[in-house]
Amino acid sequence: MDVIGVFSQRRRQLLDITSFVQQAVEASGVAEGVCHVYVPHTTAALTLNENADPTVPQDLLEALERTLPQVHWRHTEGNSDAHFLSTVIGASVHVPISEGELRLGRWQAVYFVELDGPRRREVWITCLGG
Amino acid sequence: MDVIGVFSQRRRQLLDITSFVQQAVEASGVAEGVCHVYVPHTTAALTLNENADPTVPQDLLEALERTLPQVHWRHTEGNSDAHFLSTVIGASVHVPISEGELRLGRWQAVYFVELDGPRRREVWITCLGG
Amino acid sequence: MDVIGVFSQRRRQLLDITSFVQQAVEASGVAEGVCHVYVPHTTAALTLNENADPTVPQDLLEALERTLPQVHWRHTEGNSDAHFLSTVIGASVHVPISEGELRLGRWQAVYFVELDGPRRREVWITCLGG
Repeated sequence: MDVIGVFSQRRRQLLDITSFVQQAVEASGVAEGVCHVYVPHTTAALTLNENADPTVPQDLLEALERTLPQVHWRHTEGNSDAHFLSTVIGASVHVPISEGELRLGRWQAVYFVELDGPRRREVWITCLGG
Repeated sequence: MDVIGVFSQRRRQLLDITSFVQQAVEASGVAEGVCHVYVPHTTAALTLNENADPTVPQDLLEALERTLPQVHWRHTEGNSDAHFLSTVIGASVHVPISEGELRLGRWQAVYFVELDGPRRREVWITCLGG
Repeated sequence: MDVIGVFSQRRRQLLDITSFVQQAVEASGVAEGVCHVYVPHTTAALTLNENADPTVPQDLLEALERTLPQVHWRHTEGNSDAHFLSTVIGASVHVPISEGELRLGRWQAVYFVELDGPRRREVWITCLGG
């Protein structure tokens, strides 16, 4: 399992971590399989989305914020919205590995989704296959 | 990695691709493991849901549409809603393989979720295990 | 594939199943890999979230309920909301295995998400790796 560190600068932020995932796949020696990318946090998430036009992650963050329901949160740390979005988005993404390389679609990037930053975070990467 | 082509006919549409996934599992020779089903697109998704009653996928599509927040989208291609829903639903599903067969629950089907069609799409399938 | 039974007591409920998943990982003999946890149901889901403060799962359930859109559901079983949330949350979670143990983050627990209980449910667990 590879561990990479991620440093977020804002409360909510998308960080493109594709190159780190590619490096982990190359170092793994797996030729055919799946790369499992994981956040060990409950107020962060991972997603795949477009990175060609920077307005896509901007729109995505705004849409996520506007999806948040009006709730009288019981949890007193002030970050229940982040726990909620982490469950909606999910703690892992899984990308095929073929011929020893990470096989993303043409427009796909792997994004770390910070939901309660700024913080130091980790991403854990496991390559499965042979 | 198996590649299957999917042709959508509408902007938003659920397409049952279960039989294609079952064929890929049988061809893989994997007896015990997990089947990873993946879309290499940022305006489509995959999900598992009921296929017995056709009103379930109809309700699902309508509910997804009504979940969309009112956002002044910055992305000028007019499909930021599709990028948003692809992140909410997710780009992959993973189904157990046991005794050489795809092990869905009784009511589960694998659905390709078109969010910005009609288009020609791909689904990439990788079977892990032994 | 390990099968565990889960009994829910309410219509919507989060049940912490972490200890069952840990036992399945230990019994599997997998030292390095990924644990795939799966629900074979279309009105239930799985998620990872905090279990230290019981207000977090309470807030999560209330937020999920308030996210539900106003739809004139066509499906006559009265549980289209559960089908919708199962697609939003997802039917599986995947947690790294390292040194023979389930590697959750410090605050993470594996939750079974009942969306149309009370019912007897199953969770299917497959450990991948070597």
